Parts: sequence; C-alpha cells; structure tokens
Amino acid sequence: MTTKQEFKFASATCGLKKTKKPDLAIIYSDIPCIYSGVFTTNQIHAACVDVNKDLLKKKKRIRAIVVNSGNANACTGKKGFQAAKETQHIAAKLLKIKPDEVLVASTGAIGIHLDMDKMNNGLIQACSNLSSKNLNAAAKAILTTDQFVKIVKRKTKKFKLVGFTKGAGMIHPNMATMLCYLMTDLNISQELLQKALQTANNESFNNISVDGDMSTNDMVILISNRQSKKEIKSINDPAFINFQKVLTESCIKLAKEIVIDGEGANRLINVSVHGAKLISDAKEIARSISSSTLFKCAIYGADPNWGRAASRIGCTNVKVDPKKIDVFLNTTPVYKKGVPVTFNKPKLNKQIKKSREVKVTVNLNLGNKSASAYGCDLSYEYVKFNSAYFT
Amino acid sequence: MTTKQEFKFASATCGLKKTKKPDLAIIYSDIPCIYSGVFTTNQIHAACVDVNKDLLKKKKRIRAIVVNSGNANACTGKKGFQAAKETQHIAAKLLKIKPDEVLVASTGAIGIHLDMDKMNNGLIQACSNLSSKNLNAAAKAILTTDQFVKIVKRKTKKFKLVGFTKGAGMIHPNMATMLCYLMTDLNISQELLQKALQTANNESFNNISVDGDMSTNDMVILISNRQSKKEIKSINDPAFINFQKVLTESCIKLAKEIVIDGEGANRLINVSVHGAKLISDAKEIARSISSSTLFKCAIYGADPNWGRAASRIGCTNVKVDPKKIDVFLNTTPVYKKGVPVTFNKPKLNKQIKKSREVKVTVNLNLGNKSASAYGCDLSYEYVKFNSAYFT
Repeated sequence: MTTKQEFKFASATCGLKKTKKPDLAIIYSDIPCIYSGVFTTNQIHAACVDVNKDLLKKKKRIRAIVVNSGNANACTGKKGFQAAKETQHIAAKLLKIKPDEVLVASTGAIGIHLDMDKMNNGLIQACSNLSSKNLNAAAKAILTTDQFVKIVKRKTKKFKLVGFTKGAGMIHPNMATMLCYLMTDLNISQELLQKALQTANNESFNNISVDGDMSTNDMVILISNRQSKKEIKSINDPAFINFQKVLTESCIKLAKEIVIDGEGANRLINVSVHGAKLISDAKEIARSISSSTLFKCAIYGADPNWGRAASRIGCTNVKVDPKKIDVFLNTTPVYKKGVPVTFNKPKLNKQIKKSREVKVTVNLNLGNKSASAYGCDLSYEYVKFNSAYFT
Repeated sequence: MTTKQEFKFASATCGLKKTKKPDLAIIYSDIPCIYSGVFTTNQIHAACVDVNKDLLKKKKRIRAIVVNSGNANACTGKKGFQAAKETQHIAAKLLKIKPDEVLVASTGAIGIHLDMDKMNNGLIQACSNLSSKNLNAAAKAILTTDQFVKIVKRKTKKFKLVGFTKGAGMIHPNMATMLCYLMTDLNISQELLQKALQTANNESFNNISVDGDMSTNDMVILISNRQSKKEIKSINDPAFINFQKVLTESCIKLAKEIVIDGEGANRLINVSVHGAKLISDAKEIARSISSSTLFKCAIYGADPNWGRAASRIGCTNVKVDPKKIDVFLNTTPVYKKGVPVTFNKPKLNKQIKKSREVKVTVNLNLGNKSASAYGCDLSYEYVKFNSAYFT
C-alpha cells in the first residue's frame, strides 16, 4: 500500500541509448520537499547543474527529480539550457505540479543536443507508472556502463533514508559522470539538511577518483519530506548527530560502490593518511596516491610497487618531511622513516592478487590529523571502454 | 682527432638492468664547465637531486656527469645519499678530478638500494673508454623502456649545442623519470646560462605529460666550457637572444620526442591555448587537456571526442567564460562560442587514425596570451608496461 508519505519512482526507455536499455528515471513526492545539493565545480558544466543550483539558491520546495542517461546535455549552449527547462515543463504538466518543483539531471555523451521528442515520450511513459515499489527500476535507469545498481536503505526509529547513485562510464563512453539521489523523511530545516549533506559529501564522494577527470554533470541531491515525528532544531541535537552519522556512512557505502564499479576496475585502492597537521593536508595526499596512474597500473598487476605511492606524497602542495614518512601496503610495512623495509614481495603479490581491496596506509608523523581516499586500479578494459569511437 | 675543447662520452654495462643492456653513461670535459640545472619539485626525490642542487648552489665548476639507469636510488634514505656521494668519489678518482666536480643522476625503480660493486665495475669500464665519438652510446645507456635515442645537435657561427634525453619507462617499470643533458661552448656567465635554461625548460619539458605522475628524479642539466669566441655579457646581446632561441627549440624537439616515445604511446597530443589573460592561465589549461586520461583514451581510438577536452578547460583554477570558448580538432571547428558545431565525424576519425599527431586548439577569447602543452595517447601497452610485477 502506497501512502502519501512515501517517495515514488518510475523509469522509462526513451531511446537515448544505442542499446535499448532504460534511460529515464523519475523520483516523485506527493509532499513538497526541502532540498539540499552539491554540484560539480567544473566551470564547463551541464545546463541541469545551473537549473538545480538556481532552485537551491531560491530555497524552492521540490516534488520531482527527472534524470536521463545516454546524453549529458553539456557543452550544448542556450539550446541545452532550453532543453533542461522544457524537461521541467513537460514533467510538471504531466505530474500536475509547478515547473520550479522539478529538478533535472543528465548523464552521457557531451556536446550532443538532447532529443526532446524522445524525452517527451519517455516522460509520458514514466509519469503514468509511479510507484513506491519502483526504486530498483529507477536506480537502474540512471546507469550507463555501470555493472550493478547502487542503492542504500537505512531506517532508524527516528527517520528513514533511501538513496541511489551511478558511477563511471557510459554507453557512449565519456565523462565519469556521477549522480546521487538521497531521500529522507527527517524533520529538519533546509539549512541543516544542506550542512549534513556537505559534511557527508566531503567524507565520501569528494574522496573518490576513477580517472582524475572532473565531470561536467556531477551532483548529489538530498531531499526530505519532513514527515518524521520530532523536529530537529540544532546541530547539537543527538538526533542530528545520529542522522549525520547514518548519512555519511550511506554516502561512503555508495561512493565505494562507484569506485569498485569504475570502468574496467578490479580492485579498490583504499588510502588512509595519518599524522598530518591538517585534515586537508591528509586528504590532499590521500587523493594524490589514489589517483596516480602508475600506482593504479601496479595494483592492476597486483604489484606491491610502493615507490609509486611514496613518490605521490611529495608532489602535492603539502609540506612533508621525507625522513619521517612510514608507508604500509595492507598491514606490511614497506617504508619506515624514509628508508625502504625489506619485505616478502611474492607473498604480498599473492595477497593482493586474491583480494578486491588494497589498503595503503601512510603516516606523515607531523601531527594528529587523518583522512581517507578511494580509487581503483587502471586496466586494459578501462582503455578499451574509453577508446571506442563515440559517433 | 679529439681536442681538449670537445666533450667526451662513454657507456658501460654494470648489470643494474635485468636485460644486459648498457646502464651507465659518463659525460666528461677536460675544461671545467659552468653548469645550470632544473630539478623535480617533488619533495620525495632522489639523492642525486640533492647532491646536484647543492653543487649548483655553490656554483661549482664541473668536469663530469655520471648517469646510471635501472635504479632510481630514490626513497633509499641515508644509505642512498651515501651511494650518490660514493659514486662521485669513485668517478673522481678514476678521472683524476675532484668529487665536487662530478654530477650524479639515476633513473629506474624506486626504493631499492644501489649495488655499489656493480657501479664500481661499470665506472672502471666507462672511464677507460672516453671519446668524443661516443655520444650515441651514452645517449643509449641512459634509456630504460624508451624505444629510441633522443639527441639534438646544433651549430651556429657563434656556438655549438649538443644534448640528449630520456623519457618514460623502465626495465622495472616505475616513475616516468626524465633526464636531459645539454652541452655547449657558449662563453657566458653561470647566471645567464641558468636563466637561458629556465626559459627553455618552461617552454619544453615543463609542458609535457605522459601519465601525470611527477618523478622523483627529473633533471635537466646544461653545461658550458665557455670556449666560444666572444663573451656574452647581457640578455640583450643578440648572441644571447639567438642562443636562447636555439636552446628552446632544441629542448622542445627533445621534449616532443619524449612524449612520442612515452610508454605505449602512438600519437602526440599537441594542445595550443590562445586568447588567455595570462600565459600561466593558457599553460594551466593546455596541461589540463593534454593530461586528461579520458581524452588520451579517445585519441588512442582516433575518436574525435572533443567534449572530453572541452570539459578540462573548466576544471582548473583559471576563470573562463564558457560562452566564449572555441575548440578545434586539427583544423576542424567542433565548438564555437560554447555551442557544438556539426562536423564530419567519420572523416576526422580517419584523419586522426592516419597521423602521429593530433592538434587541439582552444581560444578562450579573453585576452591575447598563448601557451602549448604536449601529451600522448593512453594505450593498452601503457597499462601492460606498468602493471608488470616489479620484483
């Protein structure tokens, strides 16, 4: 039985993808929702980013999110912006809501105009098919070259949280476009919801890298219909602290799933940096290691070639003391106080070969701050995916 | 006939590489030379970088450069530093010069101690074999996974310039270590020589990227025995201006050869950015495009997927106006004032497939400054080279 309080979902196949897979998803709420969002910082970004940022600025309540895959509607100029606005209008008319209650998002090839006839047909299909049971179908319709759907569901006594995301890859392989949608019933102000999302995002999606290419379309959206019983009024409220914890955990789960499902990826690279003076220092170094092309190739070959990770510690803007640095691969010390440690290479090679995750732990021994970053290996398959002719 | 004014060269096979290829090179001058150098800015760098920087600071005259391949002597702590000093001492004794007249350099796997017995044997071999005719042999001995030697020779009425370099790849695949040695007879002060080298380096080696990984061992060294007739005393001297031009051209030639001989590379990506407010802005965007993993994969597949280049214009710290940007692939306009241009994709695909170089031209239309950067495609072979187990 569907109640008014439930979020509803639908998917459709417009024909934007060459493979005739679902390429349109709708998230819908009978109750107007407050909304928070974080977006790509790429100045060359898609029309949908501008449209949604504008609605966030105006603190609009929203009722629907429309996501198409197969076309990023980025680098498409004024016509692209009009297509995003038209999508809002078509969906609003079909759902009997206002256009500025509709968020829009796109993922796929860059620089190709969106086919609005196809979008129109898909929206008609989807809007007639909304149900709280279609979460999985919607999560599937936003995928491109992803191998599996990525969903999170959490329920506490005080609130519910549901979310789904997509990662790297497209049918027309292009930007590693990342989208994530989270729905909750938490009774909270828009300001606190935005704060919670920013905190969670910094600990999760902002720490992942598949190929170092910042997308034109990245966005993480969190909406709330505020139907939970007790209203949260302060960041010191234990209920807020608990929500923040669950939200961050959920975002980390989805972020790690994006990485392990990265194009051609076989292994997660989980980097922790400790002993930094600032959290931002630890994070910069963790991201430097997790995004090294050479280290990613080594991990593809299960090669315990730690020198490629160590060298990345020194090429950021963070001042380090090479003589104080320790590095571990999984639990094996490989570099202690700036000196290589003799270790059993064939054994570590075998250990890495067998596992889906490799841990790199760095201690800078300069302070007490830590941070993590997540990456994946770089394989033949990644190159194959991304060298295919896009027309 | 060898004269005192000529630079002499030698190579040897120490056994630092698994393949029994030459792995030691010496450059020698009877006349003490002034010396200029630029080095990796990676804080995690090899002992040889510290040793040579110290000699530069002290403005030492130098007589010899010893380069080994097969081992980077980086991340090797105090013992690594001692190995570099010992190399200076062994070479000095054999050549009957002072240890602080010897520059040292290493390239190869990181985190492995240098075998000084092997180095000693190699140095004995090489020092007994110095000749002005051995330039090619020396240029060969510093290579790792490079496919060809990279030499430049220029001669004007006023000066001679000879140089050689190595690029990306190792027998134990590791950092993309770049080394370059240039020799001249220009009669000039150390300060002006250093200035000339920095200018040339900024236009050449600082503009290339094979895989975005900054090495622990990069260095470009330029030495002069000052035997040319007329002394140059000012940067306004036409002879200095001409030397700067020839030096920059020579460095660009060698830098482009490094890229086209990058591990697994098939095509040079030549990016020019125009219409910037500052040269540094143009350069940052040119490097952002030439080092995009996704765009490099596209060029491997001869795919005119310009969206991947366009998206990289927006993710640097340079403020751009997306509505003003033009992009060309070779001579074909693909993006004009922020709007995609219809073009013949199969034709451009065929054009790229046939050629060894792809040009990307960007006009930001914000100012009148320009800069270039050079990269290469990313292929299966790159991944293959770099995923091999390093023990």
